[in-house]
Amino acid sequence: MSDNRNIALQYAHKQQTFFLDKLKAFVAIPSVSTTPAHDGDVFKAAEWLAGYLSELDFDQIKIFPTNKHPIVYAEALGAGESAPTVLIYGHYDVQPAEPLDKWDSPAFDPIVRNDNLYSRGTTDMKGQVMASIYAVEAILNTSKLPVNIKFLIEGEEEIGSPNLSNFIRENKDLLICDFALNPDTGMLGAELPTVTYGLRGLVYFELRLRGPAQDLHSGGFGGVIHNPAQVLTELIAGMHDKKGRITLPGFYNSVQPLEDEERVELARLPIGDEFFIQNSGAKLLWDGEEGYTSVERVGTRPTLEVNGLYSGFTGEGAKTVLPADAMAKISCRLVPNQDPDEVHKQMLSYLEKNTPKTVRWDLDLLSSSPASISDRHSRWVQAYLEAAELIWGTSPLYKREGGSVPVVGDFQELLGVDSVNVGFSLPEDNMHGPNEKLHLPTWHKGIDTLIHFFFNLTS
Amino acid sequence: MSDNRNIALQYAHKQQTFFLDKLKAFVAIPSVSTTPAHDGDVFKAAEWLAGYLSELDFDQIKIFPTNKHPIVYAEALGAGESAPTVLIYGHYDVQPAEPLDKWDSPAFDPIVRNDNLYSRGTTDMKGQVMASIYAVEAILNTSKLPVNIKFLIEGEEEIGSPNLSNFIRENKDLLICDFALNPDTGMLGAELPTVTYGLRGLVYFELRLRGPAQDLHSGGFGGVIHNPAQVLTELIAGMHDKKGRITLPGFYNSVQPLEDEERVELARLPIGDEFFIQNSGAKLLWDGEEGYTSVERVGTRPTLEVNGLYSGFTGEGAKTVLPADAMAKISCRLVPNQDPDEVHKQMLSYLEKNTPKTVRWDLDLLSSSPASISDRHSRWVQAYLEAAELIWGTSPLYKREGGSVPVVGDFQELLGVDSVNVGFSLPEDNMHGPNEKLHLPTWHKGIDTLIHFFFNLTS
Repeated sequence: MSDNRNIALQYAHKQQTFFLDKLKAFVAIPSVSTTPAHDGDVFKAAEWLAGYLSELDFDQIKIFPTNKHPIVYAEALGAGESAPTVLIYGHYDVQPAEPLDKWDSPAFDPIVRNDNLYSRGTTDMKGQVMASIYAVEAILNTSKLPVNIKFLIEGEEEIGSPNLSNFIRENKDLLICDFALNPDTGMLGAELPTVTYGLRGLVYFELRLRGPAQDLHSGGFGGVIHNPAQVLTELIAGMHDKKGRITLPGFYNSVQPLEDEERVELARLPIGDEFFIQNSGAKLLWDGEEGYTSVERVGTRPTLEVNGLYSGFTGEGAKTVLPADAMAKISCRLVPNQDPDEVHKQMLSYLEKNTPKTVRWDLDLLSSSPASISDRHSRWVQAYLEAAELIWGTSPLYKREGGSVPVVGDFQELLGVDSVNVGFSLPEDNMHGPNEKLHLPTWHKGIDTLIHFFFNLTS
Repeated sequence: MSDNRNIALQYAHKQQTFFLDKLKAFVAIPSVSTTPAHDGDVFKAAEWLAGYLSELDFDQIKIFPTNKHPIVYAEALGAGESAPTVLIYGHYDVQPAEPLDKWDSPAFDPIVRNDNLYSRGTTDMKGQVMASIYAVEAILNTSKLPVNIKFLIEGEEEIGSPNLSNFIRENKDLLICDFALNPDTGMLGAELPTVTYGLRGLVYFELRLRGPAQDLHSGGFGGVIHNPAQVLTELIAGMHDKKGRITLPGFYNSVQPLEDEERVELARLPIGDEFFIQNSGAKLLWDGEEGYTSVERVGTRPTLEVNGLYSGFTGEGAKTVLPADAMAKISCRLVPNQDPDEVHKQMLSYLEKNTPKTVRWDLDLLSSSPASISDRHSRWVQAYLEAAELIWGTSPLYKREGGSVPVVGDFQELLGVDSVNVGFSLPEDNMHGPNEKLHLPTWHKGIDTLIHFFFNLTS
C-alpha cells in the first residue's frame, strides 16, 4: 500500500468526529425539494455545500442556478490529462419528512443512537455525498489526487431531476469524464458491499377525478350521482389483473424476458423473502406478479404503485358526504427498453377507455425517467471491487435495483459514460420513511473504500 | 280564519327582521359536533337556544347534559290535557364547514345575498329550529297556544345521535306526546311543500388497513410488499358488482320489493334526472343499481358510498412511497326492514372474506340507525296538508327520502308515535357542502305554515 494512500486513510480516521459533526450540520437543513415552503432551505443546503468545498483545494467551485433548485459544481483537475477523470454525482435535496408523528426524534434534529445517525437525508443521500467529499478531502489535504475529480451535486433528485438533463446537455464540455461515480444506490447489508448495474426507470402521475360541483349529501344524491372516490377505487383496482400483472394496454410489450443465466445469478443474492419481511415490517409478502421471485419482481420487473389517495372527509368522526373529487398519486417503476413516454400514453389510454363519462378527469405527469443498465466488467468497476475487498474482505454483490436514478441514463446518453453505482446506505435505513438513519461504522468504511478506489483507478 | 290565528300571523310578519337577526346570531356559533375543538361552541349554541326560549312564556326550560353534547328541552303545556301534545324535534349542531376555501363567504359569518342567508347550519337545521320556535312564539306572545308544545333539540344529530335513544328511553314520561313534528326533511322546491313519510337508515364505517411498519421506498419494495392503498381500492371496488348492486353478503335479503302502486306514485314526483343534475352540478347521472329510476334509487333502495379516502403522500409534487396504511370512510343508507347491526356484520364478513392476509385491518362503526316509514294519512299529516294548501295553494308532495333521521325510528319505537317530517330547506341549499344557504322567502312562508298547522290541529 502506497504511503499516500496510508496517510489519507489515517487522516480520515483522525477526522471521524469532525466528519460526523459537519454531516449533522448539513442534514439539519430541511432541504425538501418538493415543498415550495422549503425552497429557501434547499438553497441554504446548496450554499452550505459550496461553503464546505471552498475550504478544500478545488480549482473551481460554482453554484449554477436552474429553473428551480441550483446545482453545485466543483472540480480538482491537478492529476493532469493522462489521469482518468471521475464525475461524482450526488444530490443535496431530501424527501419530505411527513408523517412527522412517526419519527422517534425530530426529522431535522440529527441524533446518534446505537451507532446510527437519525435524520431525514442522512442516508439518502447527504451522508453519501459527504463520504465522497471526505474521501477526496483526505487525499487533497495529505498528498495529491491520483485522478481528476468533478463533483455534480443537484437539488432536484427527489422531484425527478427536472432540470438536470438540460444542464448536462448545455455543459457537456465542463462535465467531460471517463466515468461517473454514483454513491446513491447502497449496500444489501452492512457486510455486503454492492455494485448496482441495473436501475429501474420511473413515471409518476397525479390523477384527479371530479364529479359533482361540490360535496353532496350522500343521502340525497347517493345511488344517482357517481361517487368520484368510488370511481377512483375501481380505476385503480383495474390496473392490476388477478395474476398481479399491470393492465395498462401494451405495458409489457417492450419488456425483455429475463435470461436464465441472470435468474440464476439473482437467485444467489442474499435477498430472500425474509429480507423483505424484515426490512418492511409487513406481516406477509405479497405474491405480486405471477411467475417471478421476490428479488426478480423488485429488480427486473416493472411495477405500479399507489403512492397516495385523497378524497372527501378524512377527519375524525362521520361526515355523510358524497365527495366532489378524488385524487391519487400513482407511479410505475420501469425496466430497460420501456419508454416512459409510451407508458404515459398507455396510462392515458387506460383512463380514456375505463373512466366512466359521469366524471371529469385529468392526469399530470410529475416525473419521468428511463431505466438503465451498466457494464459490470469495466476497469472502473474492477477498481471498486478491489477497494471493497480490502475493506470488507469480500467481493461486492452485483445487483439490479428496484429504485430509479435517472441521472445514470442521462450520463449514458449525453456524456457517453457508464456509472459505477455504489454507496453505503443499508436496506434498514428507512430511506423515504420516518426515522431515516445512517449506519456510522458502515459509513466510515465507505469513506475508506472510496479512498482506496481513487488510488486503485491508476494502479 | 280565527282572530288568534290572524294576529299571530301579523306578529310573525312584523318580526321578520328581528327573526332573521336572531337566526344570524345563532348560526354564527360554529357548533360542529364531530370536531372536538368545537365542543365549547356546541355548548354555547345550546346555551344560546335555552337563553332565547327563556324570553318566551315556557313552563319549563332545561339543558340536559349527555355523555357528549347537551339536549335542550322546553315545554308549554297551557293548552291542557284535552288538547293534543306536539313534540317538536330539532338539532342545533352542524356539519363541519370544510373545505373552507370553497365557500364564497366565511362559513360562520352569515350574510344575505339574493334572498338567501348563507352560512353553515342555516338550512340544516338552525333555520328550521328557529322557524318552529318563531311560530310558537307568534302565538304565545299574542294569544294562547291551542296545543301543548314540547321542544327536544339535540346537539349530536350530525354525529349519529349517540346519546339520544338513551335520553328518550330514560325520559319517556317527560316526552309523552301525541305525535312528533320534525322539520328536518325539507321541500322538493320553493313552490312544492313536501311531507316525507319514509326515511333511510344509516351505518357509517371507518376502515383502516395497515401494511408495512412504515412508509417504504416504492422502488425497493414495490411488487413484493402489498400496497395497502391498492388493497383498499380493490376492496372498495368489489363492494359493487357490474349491475350497481352492493355485494356485502346478504345485503338485500330483507329489502322489500317496491310495490307497483308506490312506483307509480314516486314517478309522479317532480324529481326527474334533471333535478339531480341541476342540484349536484355533475356532468351526467350515474346508472346506479340496475332496474330502478333515479328517484327510486335515492328514496327506496339501499346504497353504499365512499365518504372519504386517505393514504400515503397527498401533498404537492411526487413522493415515491409505498404507504404504511390506508383509510376509508364508507357508509350505507338503509331501507325499512334492514337491520343496521346485520349490515355491520355483513361488512365484517365481506372484509374477512376479501381482505388479503398481507395486510391488517380494523373496522369502526361510527354511526348506526334504522330506516323508518310513517302513516301518511294521520290527522296530524292532514293538519299539515291544510296549512300548506293555505300558504302555497297546493297540497304537499309525499316523498320517501334518501337521508336518515334516526330520531324518527326512536320516537316510533320508544314513544309509540309517528313523526310529521317536513321543513323548509330546498334541494339547492347545499346542505352538507360549501355555501350552505337558507331561502328566506320560503322560510318566512314556513313560519306561517307552522302557525296555521298548530291552529289546524284542534280545529
